[in-house]
Amino acid sequence: MKMRAARMHGYKQPLVLEEVEVPKILPTEVLVHVEAAGMCRTDFQLVDGYFTALDLPFPATPGHEIAGSIAAVGAGVPAASGLAKGDQVVVVGGWGCGECDQCRVGNHQICGKGRWPGFGLYGGYGEYVPVPYQWLIRLGSENNLKPEELAPLTDAGLTPYRGIKKLQQAGVLGPNSILAVNGLGGLGMYAVQYAKLLSGGSLVVALARSDEKLAIAKEFGADVIINVKGKTLDQVRKDLIRETGRGEFNAVIDCSGAEESIGLGTGLLATSGAYCSVGLVGNRINIPLFPLVAREQTFYGSFWGNYVDLSEVIELAKKGQIKHQINIVRFEDVNDCLDRLRDSDFVGRAVLTYK
Amino acid sequence: MKMRAARMHGYKQPLVLEEVEVPKILPTEVLVHVEAAGMCRTDFQLVDGYFTALDLPFPATPGHEIAGSIAAVGAGVPAASGLAKGDQVVVVGGWGCGECDQCRVGNHQICGKGRWPGFGLYGGYGEYVPVPYQWLIRLGSENNLKPEELAPLTDAGLTPYRGIKKLQQAGVLGPNSILAVNGLGGLGMYAVQYAKLLSGGSLVVALARSDEKLAIAKEFGADVIINVKGKTLDQVRKDLIRETGRGEFNAVIDCSGAEESIGLGTGLLATSGAYCSVGLVGNRINIPLFPLVAREQTFYGSFWGNYVDLSEVIELAKKGQIKHQINIVRFEDVNDCLDRLRDSDFVGRAVLTYK
Amino acid sequence: MKMRAARMHGYKQPLVLEEVEVPKILPTEVLVHVEAAGMCRTDFQLVDGYFTALDLPFPATPGHEIAGSIAAVGAGVPAASGLAKGDQVVVVGGWGCGECDQCRVGNHQICGKGRWPGFGLYGGYGEYVPVPYQWLIRLGSENNLKPEELAPLTDAGLTPYRGIKKLQQAGVLGPNSILAVNGLGGLGMYAVQYAKLLSGGSLVVALARSDEKLAIAKEFGADVIINVKGKTLDQVRKDLIRETGRGEFNAVIDCSGAEESIGLGTGLLATSGAYCSVGLVGNRINIPLFPLVAREQTFYGSFWGNYVDLSEVIELAKKGQIKHQINIVRFEDVNDCLDRLRDSDFVGRAVLTYK
Amino acid sequence: MKMRAARMHGYKQPLVLEEVEVPKILPTEVLVHVEAAGMCRTDFQLVDGYFTALDLPFPATPGHEIAGSIAAVGAGVPAASGLAKGDQVVVVGGWGCGECDQCRVGNHQICGKGRWPGFGLYGGYGEYVPVPYQWLIRLGSENNLKPEELAPLTDAGLTPYRGIKKLQQAGVLGPNSILAVNGLGGLGMYAVQYAKLLSGGSLVVALARSDEKLAIAKEFGADVIINVKGKTLDQVRKDLIRETGRGEFNAVIDCSGAEESIGLGTGLLATSGAYCSVGLVGNRINIPLFPLVAREQTFYGSFWGNYVDLSEVIELAKKGQIKHQINIVRFEDVNDCLDRLRDSDFVGRAVLTYK
Repeated sequence: MKMRAARMHGYKQPLVLEEVEVPKILPTEVLVHVEAAGMCRTDFQLVDGYFTALDLPFPATPGHEIAGSIAAVGAGVPAASGLAKGDQVVVVGGWGCGECDQCRVGNHQICGKGRWPGFGLYGGYGEYVPVPYQWLIRLGSENNLKPEELAPLTDAGLTPYRGIKKLQQAGVLGPNSILAVNGLGGLGMYAVQYAKLLSGGSLVVALARSDEKLAIAKEFGADVIINVKGKTLDQVRKDLIRETGRGEFNAVIDCSGAEESIGLGTGLLATSGAYCSVGLVGNRINIPLFPLVAREQTFYGSFWGNYVDLSEVIELAKKGQIKHQINIVRFEDVNDCLDRLRDSDFVGRAVLTYK
Repeated sequence: MKMRAARMHGYKQPLVLEEVEVPKILPTEVLVHVEAAGMCRTDFQLVDGYFTALDLPFPATPGHEIAGSIAAVGAGVPAASGLAKGDQVVVVGGWGCGECDQCRVGNHQICGKGRWPGFGLYGGYGEYVPVPYQWLIRLGSENNLKPEELAPLTDAGLTPYRGIKKLQQAGVLGPNSILAVNGLGGLGMYAVQYAKLLSGGSLVVALARSDEKLAIAKEFGADVIINVKGKTLDQVRKDLIRETGRGEFNAVIDCSGAEESIGLGTGLLATSGAYCSVGLVGNRINIPLFPLVAREQTFYGSFWGNYVDLSEVIELAKKGQIKHQINIVRFEDVNDCLDRLRDSDFVGRAVLTYK
Repeated sequence: MKMRAARMHGYKQPLVLEEVEVPKILPTEVLVHVEAAGMCRTDFQLVDGYFTALDLPFPATPGHEIAGSIAAVGAGVPAASGLAKGDQVVVVGGWGCGECDQCRVGNHQICGKGRWPGFGLYGGYGEYVPVPYQWLIRLGSENNLKPEELAPLTDAGLTPYRGIKKLQQAGVLGPNSILAVNGLGGLGMYAVQYAKLLSGGSLVVALARSDEKLAIAKEFGADVIINVKGKTLDQVRKDLIRETGRGEFNAVIDCSGAEESIGLGTGLLATSGAYCSVGLVGNRINIPLFPLVAREQTFYGSFWGNYVDLSEVIELAKKGQIKHQINIVRFEDVNDCLDRLRDSDFVGRAVLTYK
Repeated sequence: MKMRAARMHGYKQPLVLEEVEVPKILPTEVLVHVEAAGMCRTDFQLVDGYFTALDLPFPATPGHEIAGSIAAVGAGVPAASGLAKGDQVVVVGGWGCGECDQCRVGNHQICGKGRWPGFGLYGGYGEYVPVPYQWLIRLGSENNLKPEELAPLTDAGLTPYRGIKKLQQAGVLGPNSILAVNGLGGLGMYAVQYAKLLSGGSLVVALARSDEKLAIAKEFGADVIINVKGKTLDQVRKDLIRETGRGEFNAVIDCSGAEESIGLGTGLLATSGAYCSVGLVGNRINIPLFPLVAREQTFYGSFWGNYVDLSEVIELAKKGQIKHQINIVRFEDVNDCLDRLRDSDFVGRAVLTYK
């Protein structure tokens, strides 16, 4: 049996759109029919050779944001899992070793020996993917969610959720706080919504360089929006004071990660404030030491999300508490879309479908 | 009535040793007879003009680590405070405004409108200091602690205590963890001891560039010592593996703050690890973004300590659980001593006395 | 100058409505003109002699929930406080000693040597109250809040806020959780709202014995309401399963405190769940040990709120995020109202006014 | 092949000492040769029918504290596990389902669908036990620990460790705190040691009714010991004041669980204090509500320990940081020993061996 797949045969080359064999599954795996695959900045970075350290075998199939349905269940999958052919599912990324310190507490996404769909032979850029049965979350029948809405929730819609939970548990959110969402790419559009949901009444300020993206952030719940394009830190501070009466953030979720973005966000961080980086656009944190120490700030790294985080995000989606900003991409257009991702050209998340 | 004082009459000049009037106190203040004043790197930085932003009025008297006895109690000091002439006391640094968000939860040391002894007209480099009554901790009669042991506890012996408490509360310490003390200046010598006390069985590794300091760290409880002088990160990692069987730290208390020190410490930080900076030798944090995010590390700034922290440190000292490494400095030698501080020439803390 | 006051001249007697001298203030106090005073179950308990341990001096004036305006500012009140005649204010309860472990971290409401308005000579049942200047929160000019809405926020609207924050920080709330509000008296009506605001997408279930109160809870945001009157634990569990598909709570805020209420709430608490008691209707916690231990549950006591908590609640009110359910009580009717409080007869909070 | 086993053929009957078949293992299991099995109060409770709710199949073999060596490794055990015949191991109790909320974060010991060795066909009271490979911790070669020392660490030496970690993370321990160990049975003797290790300088007070046990607690690190036999709460408070100058505990680890023990411990708990119950001797928590609420105390249940906890305890043991108080019991004497456990007759832990 054959399927379509867009695969890498080397770095810095366009993906090859081809017909290949549908993968076989191991006894404890499930074959997932991919109905939608989110397209992430990481995907073009992978193609561009940003992750050569991974020692990727070719051909490789990108695509780690996967929603679809079960096509087949391995003979060794426990009946107690309840998984059955036809079930609507999303795939949890981050398949950890199960034995290390991280896996022992459920953080498989930061396992040092883990693997991920989309970073090897199979991924969402192909129509079928084998998945160990532990890494599926079933949607259940009572929902109207579409695959293209679900797929991005497994990374773009998951990563800022985990990051903002860290800020919440740090105790820096609440009615007297200002929480900034720094960057409005694929992750930022979700971050704005979680910022409202998890911050217990904080004022949510969205920062970006695109008025179009800022307008949607406003629609998605941001209390204040500030276009930071070409502005100095002091200019942004003035905008902030004009809009809120205050000149500092108590917390920042950084969905960009560009060096200047981190400089801006930490430069406006209040005493006892907390900063959480989830974006990976840039390469370095390069900030002054004195304010971080003397103002007792905390800088959190947060990566993707674990099974529990994703189950919570899916639950929110089922309750209708997440708005989706999706750009459907046809299989034929996958290479064009990677080019557009390089240019940050999308408002919201690009999602590959096979219709 | 006259007293001796070593005062700044301008930046980048030797202190002037002079006879000046003993300060008068306000009704709610206490006059403290300084018996010992710790000498901090901050003091020569102050002299060198590092803190011009503070807009210091001249003449100014350095010295923020103060131990002594009560010479007089203001008429408006509440009897309930129990303060009386002759009482042995230490001075809590960080006299906050009492009204801001930080002060409201007891963190006066990071109040944006606060003041400190030793950064204005009066400080420990003079024989008497007026102190608002709230900022004194009485020792009580049952102890054998000397003023020169007590004075450094108010900063050098306090700052790493607060920092390590943050690491403890972050949940990264325990029998399976390695906790590094990065830098063995005035703060680091205490840090090693708190590392043992607070880490619930972590392996404590001390890092420094001086064998002499490392030898004392070993005596003070470090399980492993590594001289990092001139070594690359990979060389230090090899030393660490040879000594402990493992190549990463789960937690680091950075008592230096030099840019290369932070690079080394974060470069060897494990997944889910936490880094706490208390040292301020350098100016910048300049580290790669990816590991911090993808390995979910946390970077804490921690500054000095609050009233509660200091009361805990003093309690430890009274129980005999702190070893002191002190260099007594005579009043006459204060300028020489500042020069030696510039060169990191002391092993342990220099303490000014007036005998 | 005279004012009206309803005062206790002994236990178990009606309050005496009388004309008395307006209180004089100390230099560091502010005279507050009481425009509204919330009436609390504690007030009739005070009258009934429930708190004889307090050794109340007579005459005493009840009333610890106070909103009004500043009538006079003491000569010693610092200008930096910004307090001025005419300012709209609420009074922070819990005037701590300032020196103990609790006060040092801002929890004056649990100071062992503290005092409260309404538990001594002056309280909100009189038209003027002297208040140390630290214990006032100014509303600022930009709000439409009425005194009768503000007064209950200082206790009924504050206490469950602090309690639910504890549950939030315990990490038991989120999209997969069910949070129960147990009891819908004066506190519970606010609790339902904070439950939605602070729980990050938890399903909120309100439990009470009055359909009328439950209907308002629904209006105030409860997702599910269950009338528990006369029902066994198993019957309530069945109701819960029918409404939510699940039979246990992950968290409970108990606004009642009756022994049977605690039995019900803990009896339906899930593994790893957390229970927070703020209500004080009953006298004992009498529950089985085994489930609490073997299911690793946590039981929190939470009392009133501190300055920071109240400033957050007031901020929420200013943002329009709190709905008020108020019963205005005329000064003349204060004794009748106490009788009704004994019978739990009010839906929402009773508030005394002087118009 | 045959082995010795002491098995239950019904409730309230002596164990039958018999020769039975050595169990067969599944492909993913490991056959453990039991060299020592700790004997727990739970064991006689099991025999006495305390846990009939478990619906135990007969014959059943008690014994959930197991140390020994690997006799055989199943064909399906991953090579990456590193498990090999002859390896010295301890068995992690609490074999969870792997799929529920508790298991997902590594707390298999509180899984609602889990199982345990010693509560079914096989347990440590027999010479061989089949164990799923995930639930073994290898000791490695560099240690001098004996099986009879290791076995109790899997429950008696684990349970208080987890409990005290909860108190530590609650922030109630430190140099100014008093931590009480309430009860000195099998768990309490370890609790005293962890109290010193994890409390960052707290004063550790041991409470029990046996001078002999108290003397050992002193040897194991307790700073203060108080015999509470026949004393009222006020008498114990007086003893405490005499010994420490203070009349309250900031934290309590309750290793008993008797109703009067909980009454005593909570009755002496300070404002903001925390209580952790791990002992299960009694049936109910029956304490006044008001102090818990008005003093903002927290009551934690803590159960056994998870894989990570046990790995930490084993690491402490390997470092020589745990003292053992062991009573060796011969296989022939197992029924006698159960009788003695009923009477709390042992000082330290009874451990069954097969020599």
